[in-house]
Amino acid sequence: MPGNAKPISTMLDREFERIGKRLFLEGLVGANFGNMSVRAERGFYITRTGAYLDCREMPAFVPEDGEAPPEASSEYRVHREVYKKTPHIAIVHAHPVHAVAASFDTDLIRPIDSEGGILCPEIPVIGGEPGTDEVARNAAEALRGSRIAIIRGHGTVAAGKTLDEAYIYTSIVEHSCRVLLLSGRPGRVV
Amino acid sequence: MPGNAKPISTMLDREFERIGKRLFLEGLVGANFGNMSVRAERGFYITRTGAYLDCREMPAFVPEDGEAPPEASSEYRVHREVYKKTPHIAIVHAHPVHAVAASFDTDLIRPIDSEGGILCPEIPVIGGEPGTDEVARNAAEALRGSRIAIIRGHGTVAAGKTLDEAYIYTSIVEHSCRVLLLSGRPGRVV
Amino acid sequence: MPGNAKPISTMLDREFERIGKRLFLEGLVGANFGNMSVRAERGFYITRTGAYLDCREMPAFVPEDGEAPPEASSEYRVHREVYKKTPHIAIVHAHPVHAVAASFDTDLIRPIDSEGGILCPEIPVIGGEPGTDEVARNAAEALRGSRIAIIRGHGTVAAGKTLDEAYIYTSIVEHSCRVLLLSGRPGRVV
Amino acid sequence: MPGNAKPISTMLDREFERIGKRLFLEGLVGANFGNMSVRAERGFYITRTGAYLDCREMPAFVPEDGEAPPEASSEYRVHREVYKKTPHIAIVHAHPVHAVAASFDTDLIRPIDSEGGILCPEIPVIGGEPGTDEVARNAAEALRGSRIAIIRGHGTVAAGKTLDEAYIYTSIVEHSCRVLLLSGRPGRVV
Repeated sequence: MPGNAKPISTMLDREFERIGKRLFLEGLVGANFGNMSVRAERGFYITRTGAYLDCREMPAFVPEDGEAPPEASSEYRVHREVYKKTPHIAIVHAHPVHAVAASFDTDLIRPIDSEGGILCPEIPVIGGEPGTDEVARNAAEALRGSRIAIIRGHGTVAAGKTLDEAYIYTSIVEHSCRVLLLSGRPGRVV
Repeated sequence: MPGNAKPISTMLDREFERIGKRLFLEGLVGANFGNMSVRAERGFYITRTGAYLDCREMPAFVPEDGEAPPEASSEYRVHREVYKKTPHIAIVHAHPVHAVAASFDTDLIRPIDSEGGILCPEIPVIGGEPGTDEVARNAAEALRGSRIAIIRGHGTVAAGKTLDEAYIYTSIVEHSCRVLLLSGRPGRVV
Repeated sequence: MPGNAKPISTMLDREFERIGKRLFLEGLVGANFGNMSVRAERGFYITRTGAYLDCREMPAFVPEDGEAPPEASSEYRVHREVYKKTPHIAIVHAHPVHAVAASFDTDLIRPIDSEGGILCPEIPVIGGEPGTDEVARNAAEALRGSRIAIIRGHGTVAAGKTLDEAYIYTSIVEHSCRVLLLSGRPGRVV
Repeated sequence: MPGNAKPISTMLDREFERIGKRLFLEGLVGANFGNMSVRAERGFYITRTGAYLDCREMPAFVPEDGEAPPEASSEYRVHREVYKKTPHIAIVHAHPVHAVAASFDTDLIRPIDSEGGILCPEIPVIGGEPGTDEVARNAAEALRGSRIAIIRGHGTVAAGKTLDEAYIYTSIVEHSCRVLLLSGRPGRVV
C-alpha cells in the first residue's frame, strides 16, 4: 500500500526518540538492542546500526530495492520484506525478555490475560537467524495476518499504521508472556 | 454521594498526568493500558481511549446516564457503575502483571505481607469480559465493601476519595501479589 | 549518642528527596510506602505520614520522648527506639519485595553473593506488627549489632551514619535476597 | 597497547555519568555498586570509591604501577590487571542480578537467545574474592579471549574499545542470563 505512505516528516527523529524512550523505560529493549522503521516513498526510514533507541538521531533511508546504506540497522531485511508483503506503515523490533523466554519449543503462544486474548489471541513464533533472508521472509509471512510475531529466542517484530501501534503491540505481547510465565501455565504456550 | 463531588479543576489534566507517571514508572501500567477517572457533577471525567496515562491530555466527560462521548475510555462502563453504586470519588484501573498472574482460579486473594494484611486483607477477584455491563456490575458490587478488586486475568480496579488513594491501593495489591508469587505460597491465593 | 547529632540543615528536605528518588527508581519502595529519618538534637526529623518519598516535603520533628506530631510517619516508634538504643544517625525503612518474600519462616538470612557476604553476612529477621512498641524494640535490638534488619513480611529497616549509608544497605539486602530467590537456594535462608 | 590509549578528555566525567545513568536505569547496578574505567597514558581513570555511577564526579587516576590513590574504587586491581594483559580501552564492572544468580556451580554459561549466542556464545565464569589479586588475574586471563566474564556470585566485568561497548556487553549478558533463568533451562548453564 505505497499509497498510504506518509511523507517523511522533519520530526521523524523525534518520533523515533519518543517511542524509543518508552521502549527503554518499559524494559522492552536494553542497551542498543532493537530497531524501528517507518515506511516512506520507495523505501523506509530505519534507526541506525548500533543506535540507542532512546536517544535522538536521524534515521537512515533504505530504498525498497538494492543496497542499504551501511549506517542502516543490520536487521533492515526484515523491515524491507514486511513493507513489500504487507500494508503496514511502521515496524518496531524489540527484545522483551519474557517474550523471548516463552518462545522456545513452540510455534504459537496463546495469551491467557484479557488484553492479549482480545488483541493478539494467537501470537505466531517464527524461526530464522538474525539478519538473514529466511527470518525476513518468515516475519513478512507472519505479519500478513497479525500485528506481531516473536522470532524464536530473539525478540518481537510488531507492525501497524504507526510507531505507537507497533510499540503498543510489543508491550501487550510482553505483558501476556510475563503473565503466562508467572502463572506457571506452560500448557498455553502451545 | 453527589454531595461529595468536587468541582472539576482546570488542573485535572495535571493530576491525571501526575498519577499516570507514577503508575507507569512503577510498572503498574505499560503502553496505553489502564484508565483513571474522577467524579464530577452528574458524571465523571475519564482518561481518553488509547491515551498514555503518563502524558498530559484533557480527560473526557462522561454523563452519569446516556451515551458516552467516543473519546472516552472504552472501559467507562466500569467507572459509571462504580460511581452509581458506591460513594467513591476517584478510580484507577491498571494492569499490574503479578496481580493478573495471581488471579486465575480464585475468587479471593489473602495477602501475607503486613501492608496488604492491614489495608486489604481480602482482595476480591471478579469475572467479566472487558467493556461489558457484567464486569461493570461485578466491579461496583465488589467496591462497595473494598477499595480494590482484581478483574480475573485482566487488571485491578481501585477506588477511593482521591486518585492518590486509588493509585496507592493499586500499588499495595501488586506488591502483595508479587510477595505471594515470589514466596511460593499459592495456598494463600484461595 | 546525641553528641554525634548533626544540626538540622535547611537542606534536609532535599536530602530526603534525593534518597527517596533513588529508593523509588530502584523499586525499593512503591507508592507512599516507607519512611526515613535523621537524628537531631533531642529528637529526629522523619518523613511525613502518607508522603511519597520521592517528592520534596519538609519532614516532621519528633522529640525523643513524649508525643509525636500527627504529621509524623505512623512508624516513628521504630525510629525513636533505634536512636535511643544505638549510635545510628539516619534510618531508612523500605519495602523491597524480594527481602519481604525471603523473610517468612526464618530468623536469619545469609547472602550467597559477594557484596552481601562481605557487608551483611547475617541479616537478622525480626517480628512484630507495624507501628507497635514490640517491633520498635526488636528493630532497635537488631540494629545494635547490624546496619540492617528485615521485619518479617513487612520490609527492611537500615541505619547508619547517613541516609546514603542506610539506603545503600537497603539496596544490598534486596540484591542479596533476589539472588537467593533466583538461584533457588532456600537452604541459605536459614 | 598503550599506543591505542586515548588522551583523557575533559569530558570524561560526563561520559562516565552518561553510561552510569544507563546502567542504573536498566537495573544493572543499584545504589553505589559497580565501577568503570578508561585507559589513559601510563594508567587509567576509574570511578571513585563509593560513588553512585549515575552521578557526575571526576574519576580518579590510577598509575599502571605502584600505589593507587585512596579515592579510587577499591576494585582497581581488576582494572589494572586487565589493562596490563589485554588491549582493551574501557572497562565496566556491574552487579546484574540474573548474571550473578546464574553463576553458581558453573565455569561457563552458554546463552540460548540469539543476541547472546552471536555476541558471547561462551561466557566464562571466574572465581576470586572482590578486591584480591586472584580475581584480578582471573579477570585479565578471561578477558584476553572475551569481552566479558562473570565473577562468580559477584558481578560482571566487561571490556572493549569504549565504555559504550563494555556497557552493551554487560546488558547482553544480563539479558541472556535472564532468558536462561526464565526459560528454566539450567542445563545450558554448564
